[in-house]
Amino acid sequence: MMKRIKEDDRMTKITMKEIAEFAGVGKSTVSRYFNGGYVKEETRLRIEAVCREYHYQPNSVAKTLKARHSYQIGVITPSIDSRTSARVLTALDEQLRLSGYTPLLINTNHNEIRELSSLESFSRMNVEGIILLATQITPEHERILHKLRLPVIVLAQEMANVVTITLNDYEAGREVGQRIGQTHHQAVCLLGVSETDKAVGITRKQGILDGLQETGVSSIDFLETDFSFETSRQVVREYLKTHRPDCLICATDNLAMAAFKELHSAGLRIPQDVSLVGFGGYDVSEVLTPALTTVRFDYELEGRTAAELILELIAGNPVESVKIGYTMIEGESVIER
Amino acid sequence: MMKRIKEDDRMTKITMKEIAEFAGVGKSTVSRYFNGGYVKEETRLRIEAVCREYHYQPNSVAKTLKARHSYQIGVITPSIDSRTSARVLTALDEQLRLSGYTPLLINTNHNEIRELSSLESFSRMNVEGIILLATQITPEHERILHKLRLPVIVLAQEMANVVTITLNDYEAGREVGQRIGQTHHQAVCLLGVSETDKAVGITRKQGILDGLQETGVSSIDFLETDFSFETSRQVVREYLKTHRPDCLICATDNLAMAAFKELHSAGLRIPQDVSLVGFGGYDVSEVLTPALTTVRFDYELEGRTAAELILELIAGNPVESVKIGYTMIEGESVIER
Repeated sequence: MMKRIKEDDRMTKITMKEIAEFAGVGKSTVSRYFNGGYVKEETRLRIEAVCREYHYQPNSVAKTLKARHSYQIGVITPSIDSRTSARVLTALDEQLRLSGYTPLLINTNHNEIRELSSLESFSRMNVEGIILLATQITPEHERILHKLRLPVIVLAQEMANVVTITLNDYEAGREVGQRIGQTHHQAVCLLGVSETDKAVGITRKQGILDGLQETGVSSIDFLETDFSFETSRQVVREYLKTHRPDCLICATDNLAMAAFKELHSAGLRIPQDVSLVGFGGYDVSEVLTPALTTVRFDYELEGRTAAELILELIAGNPVESVKIGYTMIEGESVIER
Repeated sequence: MMKRIKEDDRMTKITMKEIAEFAGVGKSTVSRYFNGGYVKEETRLRIEAVCREYHYQPNSVAKTLKARHSYQIGVITPSIDSRTSARVLTALDEQLRLSGYTPLLINTNHNEIRELSSLESFSRMNVEGIILLATQITPEHERILHKLRLPVIVLAQEMANVVTITLNDYEAGREVGQRIGQTHHQAVCLLGVSETDKAVGITRKQGILDGLQETGVSSIDFLETDFSFETSRQVVREYLKTHRPDCLICATDNLAMAAFKELHSAGLRIPQDVSLVGFGGYDVSEVLTPALTTVRFDYELEGRTAAELILELIAGNPVESVKIGYTMIEGESVIER
């Protein structure tokens, strides 16, 4: 039967440095042990033995340590089923790991309520910062983000008074629009998403429309879909029953893949009958035949930058918002008319 | 480890109240301990000593103990950059959400140390259960998994004394092997992964080899790669410099995409010169030209089942391990020789 050990001043005077010394391990290992990090079983047993022997009370120290450094960053993503977010998240993950941080990920599957509740969940958990891959910024987002007492980085959407990392959607859209106008397309259909996604649904779209109009394209249809492959296929299928565009500009490569599939089913050749353009620059655009003409945003850079900036914020350093550039990928899916 | 095991008559029927009494702590502290909440190190050691002494198995009263719900499930994935894991995770996510649970995701990027440390991190956090998408099971995995005081489901790899959800890798491999033999291929190259991944590197491979041998294929080369697109391209590129197989069987669709790309670059036609087979059945296999012949495992079912089983374990119900079936997808990338 164990006796209750009385708290005693003499008992708790051993330091972390001494624990490391007595256990024959590095101080960083002891620190990792108390921070909940991984240590080998044998090492753990030795640290625990020293703690028991010296009646070490870890909670007093551990509490301060934990409050300051959990080495966890909360990451909120709208999807784990898209090449774009996969690229951003993988690069972000690797970069955070380099500094000993672990990203904890919550997927919202494009659900706004989950996005908001995830912000609150993370703020109650012991994460040191939050990175939000945003699909939209509502007043409710602003309210919650501004009252968080944690460093926050918002990706993909503009927002005042928060550090954001956004793509150069307007310029990329405009270059695509100009390109399509300059190659003399006349009946252009734009497959896009709703305006709740400001970056893709408004900014990127406006760039495309401006580029088309600057180069004299007057017939422009707009088809709205969501980001899913299946919905997009349906929308394109219906449209092709009654329309014959000479170019389809798709707001993402995933939408372009859906259009690719439906153009095939309708017996239309790419690019002879219809030109096709996407935005994304995934691996898959290369293996399509013909290869997809698309815009590549540097998603790896976006992810790495997010990791770097959140660590700067955690360190208390001043940080500015950043815009990520793009490259036109010359495929074989656009032809001069 | 709270996996439901057979109750043993020899076990002492010690109650929570008695544990509290013997350890000299409050009953609520014991409850918090078993719920994964924070208890002082000294208290934890005393509770553990009592449990050891009385051979206490926490699972027997787990149901009553779950007074406090965090409604969070820890999910550990080797990748967030693969179509396979994306499908499993998305289905898993949606199914858990239906019951009000939020999955917290840690990506290990195929790093074993991160996988082990994630298990320990989650066990210290206030999650109600852990789902591990495993790439391998080492003795260290077994040690950690068996001592966890939380419900656990392991996906993709076999493991004793833990509830697992695995694919029917052997049968699927064998059917592919037979198919290739029956269509009279003679010089088959198998693009696979290392044996550390038991499911894909050993079981699936053995199925393929058995299927090929049963149908009289004697010339079989084996190329080892990892799961990445780039490494696989390199491996195939080197091989094609000196070999002319009439069929490439790839252990995943991602490897098949890499092979597709390199066969093209080498001026080889699919399927006229070389037949190509994958395993996965992603959307992308449809948009390849020619469409990829592949095996579709029902990853959505795998994800949904994982969600259902972890909730059963949390509820204290008995749960059995499950095998997930497959379908052959008839593409255009295999031809009769």
